Amino acid sequence: MENKMSSRLSSPVVAIVGATGAVGVEMLHCLEARDFPLSRLKLLASPRSAGRKLKFRGEEIEVEPLSETSFKGVDIALFSASGSVSRKFAPIAVEAGAIVVDNSSAFRMDDAVPLVVPEINGGDIARHKGIVANPNCAAVISITPLWPVHARNRIKRLIVATYQAASGAGAAAMEELSESTRAYLDGRDYKNTVLPHPYAFNLFSHNTAIDPDTGYNDEEMKVIEETKKIFGDPDIAVSATCVRVPVLRAHSVAVTFQCERPISASEVRELMKTAPGVKLVDDWENNYFPMPKDASGQDDILVGRIRQDLSDPTGHSVTLFCAGDQLLKGAALNAVQIAEHLVKVPALA
Amino acid sequence: MENKMSSRLSSPVVAIVGATGAVGVEMLHCLEARDFPLSRLKLLASPRSAGRKLKFRGEEIEVEPLSETSFKGVDIALFSASGSVSRKFAPIAVEAGAIVVDNSSAFRMDDAVPLVVPEINGGDIARHKGIVANPNCAAVISITPLWPVHARNRIKRLIVATYQAASGAGAAAMEELSESTRAYLDGRDYKNTVLPHPYAFNLFSHNTAIDPDTGYNDEEMKVIEETKKIFGDPDIAVSATCVRVPVLRAHSVAVTFQCERPISASEVRELMKTAPGVKLVDDWENNYFPMPKDASGQDDILVGRIRQDLSDPTGHSVTLFCAGDQLLKGAALNAVQIAEHLVKVPALA
Repeated sequence: MENKMSSRLSSPVVAIVGATGAVGVEMLHCLEARDFPLSRLKLLASPRSAGRKLKFRGEEIEVEPLSETSFKGVDIALFSASGSVSRKFAPIAVEAGAIVVDNSSAFRMDDAVPLVVPEINGGDIARHKGIVANPNCAAVISITPLWPVHARNRIKRLIVATYQAASGAGAAAMEELSESTRAYLDGRDYKNTVLPHPYAFNLFSHNTAIDPDTGYNDEEMKVIEETKKIFGDPDIAVSATCVRVPVLRAHSVAVTFQCERPISASEVRELMKTAPGVKLVDDWENNYFPMPKDASGQDDILVGRIRQDLSDPTGHSVTLFCAGDQLLKGAALNAVQIAEHLVKVPALA
Repeated sequence: MENKMSSRLSSPVVAIVGATGAVGVEMLHCLEARDFPLSRLKLLASPRSAGRKLKFRGEEIEVEPLSETSFKGVDIALFSASGSVSRKFAPIAVEAGAIVVDNSSAFRMDDAVPLVVPEINGGDIARHKGIVANPNCAAVISITPLWPVHARNRIKRLIVATYQAASGAGAAAMEELSESTRAYLDGRDYKNTVLPHPYAFNLFSHNTAIDPDTGYNDEEMKVIEETKKIFGDPDIAVSATCVRVPVLRAHSVAVTFQCERPISASEVRELMKTAPGVKLVDDWENNYFPMPKDASGQDDILVGRIRQDLSDPTGHSVTLFCAGDQLLKGAALNAVQIAEHLVKVPALA
């Protein structure tokens, strides 16, 4: 099968599962903007969204209802749906001959599935067995800038506090943030239905279940566990506090890390200048640093506020602040980058 | 002078300097709500705001223009104005016989001036020489819950990341957040004039000057230095990242601390149940934790998300999340609490 796929993958048929969602739409945009060498694009969604038309390369493509026969002839399937949809349909897609890039958490911690940020461990893609997992958005945005540091001077302790946008909970959550804020400003009542707490000018702990043993929520455990897997370093000690803030689409993160050997802020700043997927925004004089409004719509993760961590007098720790588009590098862009690797290096053995 | 003041202080004449500002108005509310035993309330503000009338105990009080003769007969002057107003007028007030409780940063790090959170170091008030400083709001909200921990098992390392509301920059900033958000929702342009960056659905690094040596901003250095002074522990190593989020009036903080001896999350949770000025909000099952919407208008600092810090495998670290009303415990309430101590214990020697 590898030979057939290798040749087909030079100009693959690509499917987007969940094409009408916030991330699905951005996947379509990324494929178009990056001139992805596909021969045909198939858009799949729930029956409720089927029949809608989305524009791609000047052409209207009708969204088809996802079914067990949807993947015939598909070479690469980009999944951006719920974990349960991925658990059911990703194996069906693989069985039909497609390689799946899955944006859900369903397979991320599966030993047989590479979990990939191309700038960090793109080489892991080659050992896939049909599925490549796309990491959690907060994890991608927190750790992509840290990889060049870790590669030079191992990070042994990592503490992140996130400022996560509505987009991470989907288009409906973005709408709820806008509508509830308008209601607040107008002095009207608003009943939140998408997120568990009032969102207008408010923030709250990430709306995922709390692990009864540790007290960490699911999102935090994803950042913690996925960091270890992506870095290929099970011993890195990570703590995360994940918070939803009333921002529409880019996540920000306050990051503090402690290295094995002493490290200076200026050394980290130099590394950020050439770090792949990263843009240094660290203008002390004008007080201009990474902001979600600037990160929105940008491929790069913005990094700044790089300074020695004054809570570690031994000089082993640095702190910084970053902001990245949750829908792009945090989701759709990273998935399309993985697909680009698949086109170049389809499979190993 | 002490004898005269001691007797007068049982029913003092109180002045609020900056009475029409966001904090000044809350000082008036706190004095009324807490039934502060004052004989007369004098409201002072810039000539621009003079002539306005504010209600206190059912009576309208006219705001007088602040001048060098304003403090005749005043026993306690609560200052909530700029640092330059405090630097000029606080010594004048002291000279006229008043005790000043100053909410600006002008005197906070002065060795002769106690810097006080009553729940932590109320005893320091007695050694004042005319001025008692009210700490930075982010510092108060971050460290008030930590005091019972520090008293039992010294905190040697402290890392905070803040989520600060518009109110910290005054009433005009709150108005700018509301108005710019309305403009954003209506698709209209809005030119920000109070804060340096667009605020609607955006966040940004705290709008204070960056120290050219360390890269920390003024707000962060206040949290770092004031923590040491209030705890009376110059060796505690502190790092802070201060961020403005699009929230109207309560600050939130992600706090990670490392103690001298091992400490468990459950031990910290027990301490929070009886910590003065603190309310435990840590409902894992219902995902209900401290939020600015709940902290607004509350005297207590809400504390939750208490868990072992997984980035420290030695078990010496715990992480938590808190939210406190910036205008109340972060400013006006703390100042009025200091004034209450002055009424009880006017001065030592």
